[in-house]
Amino acid sequence: MTPADAARLDAADPLAFARERFDLPDGVIYLDGNSLGALSRATPERMARAVRNEWGERLIASWNEAGWVDLPQRLGERIGRLVGAERGSVVVADSTSVNVFKLAASALRQNTPRRVILAEADDFPTDVYVLQGLGRLTGAELRLVARDAIEPALTEEVAVVVLTHVHFRTGAIHDMARLSARAASVGALSVWDLSHSAGALQVRLDADGADFAVGCGYKYLNGGPGAPAFLYVAARHQSAFQNPLSGWFGHAEPFAFAQDYAPVAGAARGLAGTPPILSMIALEQGLATFDGVDMAAARAKAMRLTQLFLDLALDRCGGFDLQAACPLDPAARGAQVSLRHPRGFAIVQALIADGVVGDFRGPDVLRFGFAPLYVGYADVVEAVGRLHRVLTEERWRDPRFSIRAAVT
Amino acid sequence: MTPADAARLDAADPLAFARERFDLPDGVIYLDGNSLGALSRATPERMARAVRNEWGERLIASWNEAGWVDLPQRLGERIGRLVGAERGSVVVADSTSVNVFKLAASALRQNTPRRVILAEADDFPTDVYVLQGLGRLTGAELRLVARDAIEPALTEEVAVVVLTHVHFRTGAIHDMARLSARAASVGALSVWDLSHSAGALQVRLDADGADFAVGCGYKYLNGGPGAPAFLYVAARHQSAFQNPLSGWFGHAEPFAFAQDYAPVAGAARGLAGTPPILSMIALEQGLATFDGVDMAAARAKAMRLTQLFLDLALDRCGGFDLQAACPLDPAARGAQVSLRHPRGFAIVQALIADGVVGDFRGPDVLRFGFAPLYVGYADVVEAVGRLHRVLTEERWRDPRFSIRAAVT
Repeated sequence: MTPADAARLDAADPLAFARERFDLPDGVIYLDGNSLGALSRATPERMARAVRNEWGERLIASWNEAGWVDLPQRLGERIGRLVGAERGSVVVADSTSVNVFKLAASALRQNTPRRVILAEADDFPTDVYVLQGLGRLTGAELRLVARDAIEPALTEEVAVVVLTHVHFRTGAIHDMARLSARAASVGALSVWDLSHSAGALQVRLDADGADFAVGCGYKYLNGGPGAPAFLYVAARHQSAFQNPLSGWFGHAEPFAFAQDYAPVAGAARGLAGTPPILSMIALEQGLATFDGVDMAAARAKAMRLTQLFLDLALDRCGGFDLQAACPLDPAARGAQVSLRHPRGFAIVQALIADGVVGDFRGPDVLRFGFAPLYVGYADVVEAVGRLHRVLTEERWRDPRFSIRAAVT
Repeated sequence: MTPADAARLDAADPLAFARERFDLPDGVIYLDGNSLGALSRATPERMARAVRNEWGERLIASWNEAGWVDLPQRLGERIGRLVGAERGSVVVADSTSVNVFKLAASALRQNTPRRVILAEADDFPTDVYVLQGLGRLTGAELRLVARDAIEPALTEEVAVVVLTHVHFRTGAIHDMARLSARAASVGALSVWDLSHSAGALQVRLDADGADFAVGCGYKYLNGGPGAPAFLYVAARHQSAFQNPLSGWFGHAEPFAFAQDYAPVAGAARGLAGTPPILSMIALEQGLATFDGVDMAAARAKAMRLTQLFLDLALDRCGGFDLQAACPLDPAARGAQVSLRHPRGFAIVQALIADGVVGDFRGPDVLRFGFAPLYVGYADVVEAVGRLHRVLTEERWRDPRFSIRAAVT
């Protein structure tokens, strides 16, 4: 694969139109959209209008005039299209952590008297932490098992199983249809975390039988740093769904100021307090980068990008102790490549200094995300070239690449 | 009080410097800062920089470089000064509703085996709704009592009492020191909602013996629509405080990706998931409008503004069925005046059309907030003049003023 070959693939890319929607800094190959999605070109102006006009000039009137009050539902519909969810089953609210709590708590309650929450021990930490907190609060038992022990652990004791669809470190995909069916077969409910899936894969929540789901707005959905998260409640559970964080935005008539909580119909009862409107508006612009994007095409492109990166990296850099830490089959892997190297941390820092932004996940994983809307084939070829240079020149030995910052 | 008298008071106002920090639309007298605070002049440029430079150009690096990761604590310290809380006892996180849940849940647990949550029946609905949800989840009993029954209801059965310091509809202030002491005397813990206090009153959480508190970022703190909220944990409770929403941002080492939750020291363990950074940055600018503002002076000014409005309104408009719905003693009232009129809804709409923005709270309350940083004495005189005109000319009879929008 020469740079010319890559340029031809980029020219023929059916998603090339989407790349024009982003402003990326010159010289940077951004392979960290799985941690923080890139800025849409349309976002700065939209944010300026929200701040100066909607807030500054129209003030409180903008709750109605500018449609602030409907943002959770409006954004939910946009996300619903990306994750295979019917209308009314997705809303944007709070953070992924808080939404995991809401859904797992409701699933526990709906599945009384069962008291076991099942989760993957090596799942993204905040999901596990939140389930530990829910266990402490309610007396439910949290069972953490290894990835290959999930299926055997799905017994008739389990009230709810919480799984991340695409693993944050390895990129390995769980088979949502099979595991949801397996959970259903023992009477357990499933909660899927789509943080590394939404916007990168073809997710089919309704078709695959998921019961509940959450996901992140600031990764592939390009919603901006700490963008609000989303939650999904399958239509069949919406009337039984009880949000324990029963704030006024999930009330049937929030502005009637009634004394008793009465939940609105649909997944919107998953809302709690007043949403952070400026962050919601940035997320709306991030979601607009998916306008006209066919998620089957996005998934196909992400598979080709990751395969090309993995093949080139192992071919050119395999001699430098670099190994794959992700599935080799593109169908089993999200839009990311994970490599393993004992000097992984310093290599990632040296790469960032050379304009290839990935990230490091302990103990030894170099993680690269390939957001199909703005990463191209030429980026992949160039990124591997720079990785090769970091390794051959041993740039990672520079002491400044060993300094750990607060956020890694 | 003539317009010239009012202009003299404004000229002598020791907080006149703060008014220059705001951009209010021409011709508008904004008396709804208790619902959505006004835009600081510094905010648009700061937001543009956050979006274009920090997010767009520096991307993921801004978590460290731009100090995004410390925003919850940094903003907490700024708020701590305004509410009389020592360092490390306030952080910014989530919404008021979600924070009420966290604190009441922890207080319940700290006060085991007591199972009673006491609250005011007529409190702001979302606080009550959230406590109802907590009761359903944990089996705790929620006792809702009338305002004058709170003290007698504080018995040794009560685990936690949740009270809003300044009532959203009437502006009546609870005596925080007396009620906190009364709670302590029966072994109950107190949670104070400062949504209508922070930035408008001299709050003394530490000195008044509050155990926990929450509050809103988007009212007097000028943080923007739906700005994140804050929470306070008194120093003596910080080691026992257990956040049930135990997400990774409250972990002692969030980026170590350890499997088990281990809370960080201080109120920061009240953090849950990743915070909405753009909304946090807007809140930081809102808090900067308090730089150099002495809260004793702000409180004194708010008392004078509300008294002037109330005196003028009752004097000039009392013949039009208008009555006070707030305490007559300024020391017993927050920075708001509430009036009662059977046509309250339409009168508020007619006033808004005439450039005086207040709001309506059912069944019959006209509510006016007097943010001491940007409302002046001339505004008060002019606002009462327009209220008088709406009443004398019966402008509220215009049918368009009876149309209710989604948000009132």
